[in-house]
Amino acid sequence: MKTEKKPTPALVPCPAILLSVAGDEKPNIITLSWAANVCSNPPTLVVGIRPNRFSHDLVRKAGDFVVNIPSADLIKETIFCGSRSGKDHDKFEECKLTPLASTKVTSPMIKECPINIECKTEKIVGLGAHDLFIAEIVAVHVEESILDSNGRLDPEKANLFTYLPLAAEYWKLGEKIA
Amino acid sequence: MKTEKKPTPALVPCPAILLSVAGDEKPNIITLSWAANVCSNPPTLVVGIRPNRFSHDLVRKAGDFVVNIPSADLIKETIFCGSRSGKDHDKFEECKLTPLASTKVTSPMIKECPINIECKTEKIVGLGAHDLFIAEIVAVHVEESILDSNGRLDPEKANLFTYLPLAAEYWKLGEKIA
Repeated sequence: MKTEKKPTPALVPCPAILLSVAGDEKPNIITLSWAANVCSNPPTLVVGIRPNRFSHDLVRKAGDFVVNIPSADLIKETIFCGSRSGKDHDKFEECKLTPLASTKVTSPMIKECPINIECKTEKIVGLGAHDLFIAEIVAVHVEESILDSNGRLDPEKANLFTYLPLAAEYWKLGEKIA
Repeated sequence: MKTEKKPTPALVPCPAILLSVAGDEKPNIITLSWAANVCSNPPTLVVGIRPNRFSHDLVRKAGDFVVNIPSADLIKETIFCGSRSGKDHDKFEECKLTPLASTKVTSPMIKECPINIECKTEKIVGLGAHDLFIAEIVAVHVEESILDSNGRLDPEKANLFTYLPLAAEYWKLGEKIA
């Protein structure tokens, strides 16, 4: 038996990313789950950000950002960076995260995240409560310890997790099924 | 130590969705992992589809589609619908999946998927190898047996899984961490 729910963003599971962006005084971090790969060539991803979020203006001004994929070890930092504003907090300092210079963009990446994806904004599409940032992926960095001997991601070593908006919960990955 | 990879869609983990769409002769199903919630109001999601895929034209013509979230029980059907073309296959019939009339769109939903999200295309943005379909979520249906007593998703009962493009593997969710 199915029940009809109010129309709501119900796509699950979602990634949980830490978006890092350059700022006038200091770089900032924002946790987002509304993000996806959307094109292979040019490699492109999208993120949805509310215009009233502190990072929205920073991303717009910088013209670039980094999508950092946290491991489950960083769950506390992930929740902190999603529930505090960079207006009042230095999230890099308070979370003891390290900004590293990127190779292709002005925004720094987060050293402690095993995957860093440097992005240049190509287009901003206003949707309503959120703006959609469409961005080209210009560089990808991966921690060698989460790759197998063929250079492919080893999900067990990566210790990834996912966000489930319909439950408001974070879950680790379990076992490979295919 | 980090290693720099060729720029590639490296955002993980990704959802794995079964997109169902109306057709002239028969409805079709396509498996996609490039999909995300992107806006809360109006509730909006995006999917990236290659123009040369059979479903691309169907989605463009129908002006709507349904995002169906499969449970891990449907992993074989998920792989089948991602590796065959609707030009040569009746995927509903061959996978023994049941098309159900939607309430707000012309495209049918898949009965066997525990979550069905009816979507109306609002805008198509050409990105290169893929087109981005930006769509309003107009109805959501959830199988009652995967909800807890408060009407929230119970991820354990939902038996969800995720796709990891950097490994080309499907992984089930494991345990709650927050």
